Amino acid sequence: RIDPARLWDSIMEMAKIGPGVAGGNNRQTLTDADSEGRKLFQSWCEAAGMTMGVDQMGTMFATRPGEDPDALPVYMGSHLDTQPTGGKYDGVLGVLGALECVRTMNDFGIKTKHPIVVVNWTNEEGTRFAPAMLASGVFAGKHELQWAYDREDHDGKTFGDELKRIGWVGDEKVGDRKMHALFELHIEQGPILEAEGKDIGVVTHGQGLRWIECTVTGKESHTGSTPMSMRKNAGRGLALVTELVHEIAMANQPNAVGAIGHIDVYPNSRNIIPGKVVFTVDMRTHILPKLNAMVAEFEERAPKLCADIGVEFENKIVGQFDPPAFNEDCVKAVRAAAERLGYSHMDIVSGAGHDACWINDVAPTAMIMCPCVDGLSHNEAEEISPEWAAAGTDVLLHAVLETAEV
Amino acid sequence: RIDPARLWDSIMEMAKIGPGVAGGNNRQTLTDADSEGRKLFQSWCEAAGMTMGVDQMGTMFATRPGEDPDALPVYMGSHLDTQPTGGKYDGVLGVLGALECVRTMNDFGIKTKHPIVVVNWTNEEGTRFAPAMLASGVFAGKHELQWAYDREDHDGKTFGDELKRIGWVGDEKVGDRKMHALFELHIEQGPILEAEGKDIGVVTHGQGLRWIECTVTGKESHTGSTPMSMRKNAGRGLALVTELVHEIAMANQPNAVGAIGHIDVYPNSRNIIPGKVVFTVDMRTHILPKLNAMVAEFEERAPKLCADIGVEFENKIVGQFDPPAFNEDCVKAVRAAAERLGYSHMDIVSGAGHDACWINDVAPTAMIMCPCVDGLSHNEAEEISPEWAAAGTDVLLHAVLETAEV
Ligand SMILES: NC(=O)NCCC(=O)O
Ligand SMILES: NC(=O)NCCC(=O)O
Repeated sequence: RIDPARLWDSIMEMAKIGPGVAGGNNRQTLTDADSEGRKLFQSWCEAAGMTMGVDQMGTMFATRPGEDPDALPVYMGSHLDTQPTGGKYDGVLGVLGALECVRTMNDFGIKTKHPIVVVNWTNEEGTRFAPAMLASGVFAGKHELQWAYDREDHDGKTFGDELKRIGWVGDEKVGDRKMHALFELHIEQGPILEAEGKDIGVVTHGQGLRWIECTVTGKESHTGSTPMSMRKNAGRGLALVTELVHEIAMANQPNAVGAIGHIDVYPNSRNIIPGKVVFTVDMRTHILPKLNAMVAEFEERAPKLCADIGVEFENKIVGQFDPPAFNEDCVKAVRAAAERLGYSHMDIVSGAGHDACWINDVAPTAMIMCPCVDGLSHNEAEEISPEWAAAGTDVLLHAVLETAEV
Repeated sequence: RIDPARLWDSIMEMAKIGPGVAGGNNRQTLTDADSEGRKLFQSWCEAAGMTMGVDQMGTMFATRPGEDPDALPVYMGSHLDTQPTGGKYDGVLGVLGALECVRTMNDFGIKTKHPIVVVNWTNEEGTRFAPAMLASGVFAGKHELQWAYDREDHDGKTFGDELKRIGWVGDEKVGDRKMHALFELHIEQGPILEAEGKDIGVVTHGQGLRWIECTVTGKESHTGSTPMSMRKNAGRGLALVTELVHEIAMANQPNAVGAIGHIDVYPNSRNIIPGKVVFTVDMRTHILPKLNAMVAEFEERAPKLCADIGVEFENKIVGQFDPPAFNEDCVKAVRAAAERLGYSHMDIVSGAGHDACWINDVAPTAMIMCPCVDGLSHNEAEEISPEWAAAGTDVLLHAVLETAEV
């Protein structure tokens, strides 16, 4: 079993970097805080006897050698970047849990045939640079490296420039590493495990996602002196589309979800009718045909709703992944570990996207979930118990040890 | 008659300060660009033989002496601040038109019994610091000076600090000046004069306004892993209230208007359900009981709409003025000047609020409007013709000369 107190201490130590405004974290990708967090993680890995490799996307790979020099490594990890108002555990538990597994192996002098690699993927969250899971997406061949470098944040800064600025461009070619398997431990970010009273979620599938960036164009004009009949109010387009997204998700229950999280209004002045609103629709479900049908319905109805009120509607997909089904052997290893350790467990679908969802396409992959309080995540109030963290990390350790062959 | 080319040149010269991104201006109140514009205006006033006084709100008063030292001055002017994506004429025409009137009086050696004062009111637009017409509001006794100083912009900077920072805190007590009359020339910012083919709008009334700042509070959570049934999506509150505002305005046609121009979404991330949305509703009509009824309906229905979807609604009034009826003698002087000069004219209600609307409560006041292309304002593409500018300024000159007694 891992050392729960050491794990918790490390999580709390990391949470000091990029503090939020309400007890959580703002350690967005490629910020100075991200760089600082990486340095701390690197120092811990080196102290645990691992050697660090960094690829051209800034993803960090810390290796613990195996007994067989020809065996492919078993990977485990997640991400250290956070939402602007994120929690202390989303991603972090998976990285520092993996580190705790290595520390535990060291404590007990455990040797494995396969090398072990602890990984910190760059830009999982996708808030600053869409899409989410960017580095793992390049790793899995979903995106070109240059395309990733060209992603822009809200201020027009590119991913490539910012990665250089914080000093974390590595020399490894992205995706060159071959994996024996990959395991990602993550908090559920949803309410199911807590409601069912289970310690461990054995993740069998994930939801697919579409991020649809929409631009509604009306005409900026004076709120006082423009007669109602002459208005082209882009804000009304946003309103109608907001309700459309909700309606489509509700018509596809259970499991489907939809919402608009990001909205920019131009010029955003109290006495100017919005001339333009740019926003991103997030739609998900774990059934691919349903997901495609939801998007098709959206793309048919949204332009009509906007046309009816005299504003223009354009959209483009800025993030997408299809619903993954995880590797059966890896899933079995997770389930068996939970069983062996005596933790209550259930099979579960991941509501959120994860780096493991991309890696699943290029290597045998599985995920382990632990509950979080009220299912709350992407919120500074995100909370888990030290016991949940320990249980998930124990299962991670045992699944990895089985796969890496002790 | 005034010198149309000189007037136009001055407007174009001013437009070089705080250029916008699309041919208009971004010279928001109390920015460095505002300060620079003020300096240019001051230098022009001094070159025209006037002396500048500045009050504690930073409002600039340039005086041309009259023949009777005991006669109260006749004021004319408007504002030099702009919207973030504003036009070159909104406010500017009224200030530089007034300056052009003085230059014309100088050219012709015209002497008046009453002194003439050209005024540039601080923070008419109200974009950066709500409410609009802030300095004229303090002048008219509608707001306390300290309350005005405490207004905050989006970054938490106060009006008082920013006025100090740009170096335009004057020593005159606000509102101490007594006025014989005040005339404000302004572009219509609406489509009526152009549609009716009139050169001059004789403004008899204005619309009243309410700015209602609303906060919808839901719960930040993950867009992927939060089941639809557990969501508290503040963005849906915004959507429902946007349509409510539209519906209330449409139910009060003709004349009533309503829209939401300013929206801030928290935390504004693609994969976070909005936990909070803050926005400002702008409602107007020139009939006071109707305006009050619209606000009452809004305040009754908006919280219910939000409660129905499980989010909280709070609101407060952050700007308001009742519909003004301008001084009959001043209005007559405007109409007579247009008549005498042979300009086509019509009586009109001002759709927008203006500094003259506040001053109307403490001095005999009237407004002159000239058309603008497509009725477009609060847009960088705002346009007027030099002929329209000249006609309006001619009428201003003649109305002022009649009132100031040549
Ligand atoms: N786990 C997580 O929040 N990933 C970000 C991508 C997503 O929105 O699902
Ligand atoms: N004229 C003008 O745009 N004034 C600002 C106040 C308002 O929104 O009416």
